[in-house]
Amino acid sequence: MRRLVNDGYEAVEEMLAGYVAAQGKYVDFAENDKRVIVSKQMSEEPRVRIIVGGGSGHEPLFLGYVGKDFADAAVVGNINTSPSPEPCYNAVKAVDSGKGCLYMYGNYAGDVMNFDMGAEMAADDGIRVETVLVTDDIYSAENVEDRRGVAGDLIVFKAAASAAAKGLDLDAVKQAAEKANANTFSMGVALSSSTLPVTGKAIFEMKEGEMEVGMGIHGEPGIKRTSIEPADKVVDQIMGYLIEEMKLTAGEEVHVLINGLGGLPVMDQYICYRRVDEILKEKGVHIHSPLVGNYATSMDMIGMSITLVRLDDELKDLLDTPCDTPYFKVD
Amino acid sequence: MRRLVNDGYEAVEEMLAGYVAAQGKYVDFAENDKRVIVSKQMSEEPRVRIIVGGGSGHEPLFLGYVGKDFADAAVVGNINTSPSPEPCYNAVKAVDSGKGCLYMYGNYAGDVMNFDMGAEMAADDGIRVETVLVTDDIYSAENVEDRRGVAGDLIVFKAAASAAAKGLDLDAVKQAAEKANANTFSMGVALSSSTLPVTGKAIFEMKEGEMEVGMGIHGEPGIKRTSIEPADKVVDQIMGYLIEEMKLTAGEEVHVLINGLGGLPVMDQYICYRRVDEILKEKGVHIHSPLVGNYATSMDMIGMSITLVRLDDELKDLLDTPCDTPYFKVD
Repeated sequence: MRRLVNDGYEAVEEMLAGYVAAQGKYVDFAENDKRVIVSKQMSEEPRVRIIVGGGSGHEPLFLGYVGKDFADAAVVGNINTSPSPEPCYNAVKAVDSGKGCLYMYGNYAGDVMNFDMGAEMAADDGIRVETVLVTDDIYSAENVEDRRGVAGDLIVFKAAASAAAKGLDLDAVKQAAEKANANTFSMGVALSSSTLPVTGKAIFEMKEGEMEVGMGIHGEPGIKRTSIEPADKVVDQIMGYLIEEMKLTAGEEVHVLINGLGGLPVMDQYICYRRVDEILKEKGVHIHSPLVGNYATSMDMIGMSITLVRLDDELKDLLDTPCDTPYFKVD
Repeated sequence: MRRLVNDGYEAVEEMLAGYVAAQGKYVDFAENDKRVIVSKQMSEEPRVRIIVGGGSGHEPLFLGYVGKDFADAAVVGNINTSPSPEPCYNAVKAVDSGKGCLYMYGNYAGDVMNFDMGAEMAADDGIRVETVLVTDDIYSAENVEDRRGVAGDLIVFKAAASAAAKGLDLDAVKQAAEKANANTFSMGVALSSSTLPVTGKAIFEMKEGEMEVGMGIHGEPGIKRTSIEPADKVVDQIMGYLIEEMKLTAGEEVHVLINGLGGLPVMDQYICYRRVDEILKEKGVHIHSPLVGNYATSMDMIGMSITLVRLDDELKDLLDTPCDTPYFKVD
């Protein structure tokens, strides 16, 4: 296993200890739960609080976006595993300021079950918690509501957090998140598996030289497995699916996120961005404030996804609202 | 090859096209040289200009640090290959404001030869160019002046750029860079090779399960090749060498940089940081504003390095001076 860990069972706890030590300007553990990372820079005035989370192994997602005017807390599960209900609940207790909380996470069954139980526990305490599931992975299901969440998490979280930072109420913050989610579309390609620290093994088999377009970030099956193709051909395929799904037309404006899955070099990410830029310009689609980098990974997985966000003035404003966290800053 | 590129010979040009398209807020090509990336946010008042550079394949080093109050230009070579003298010279022509320029790069023979020729060409035009070589890799040679530059580049560049941003003259800026370099010490470990886009092959052989402590970022030999060890044992070894080299003692203050070489998960980087933090706290050494991330990579190489910087008030102030670039922000 080409990883630097100690006992694989301790990897998440040790990562969190390191994270809180390194990023102590931004975050701390919740007082009663070391699986909840809370912002040290929460607004003093009461606001809707933004709580994100899910399994570990996608860093900097989720904990990397806890900070000023972005997520107020992240609930941390084991690798590729939902957190249990208690930390979901404890996160609410740690950050609620009387205005309610919004849970946001990628649409995976385990997360839905556990966060929903956390929300029920909070409801028993009289705290209102709403939920928006991110469903940006266009190839994961025909029905939009059944789709998984991948790198689009970042966009949906950001839109909601900006709405909360503006002082909007829980219904309006939820609405902002839902609007962002409805306009966010992703598709990825994997060239390798990720490696689990506990077993030391790949989570699925992928031979050197193979790739799969449409694969999920935990190795969920995609469209077909082929030989690795040139970057432009890969981008062309993904963009074809995205443009068709969005019915994107000339004159529209989009945000572009090229997300590295962990092991893909920065060089390759920009080679891919170059082609996305060419395609959109050719089509007469304007690009607003693109992002290129490892925003939602699968540990050491080699691959990337492309996310397009259809923008209007409201969404543009929400994406451009200042925030400051260890892994995402807007000024 | 698990990479997303097109023609390997075009990889650098295509990366640059993508980079300038995506980061157009910060950078552009120099007018007469597409191997020179210049800042769009250079100070209007004349200042010493900071020019960094070297071979490609270490992104976000070097071009990722061109922006506001950091590097004013980056000179871009082919992968693991020094840029030729012309772009080194063209960078000076593109950014000089009458106060002279400082070249900074890692100490590799090819870079020294080419940048020196660039400086001579600039001297013929009456432009003064000074050079500071970064030599932070403690295991690369006994003599400090013969050592290679690795992740410490970021620290030395930052110190000099902050001095330039404060309006200091070329001698003072150079002095700041030399002081930062004299106090910056790095050592790394590699668990895999990087993959060259042109050949599709690893640049050196490394079997699954092997690691080498002290290896350079192009695969230069280290101390010994062993089986991959637990993270803490790897960190303990590296910290032992660094502490001995620096003669670090209780009561001192250091900056810590955990640098991922490309393919090492964020999770593992924080597991390593956790151990560095423990060791330094145990020793009574204070840590100032640590950094954890992929700052100087070798494309897809799996591995990391630890950099320690002995601080005094002057160096602390230089590292904390605000700057804004795509891959490094201080506010």
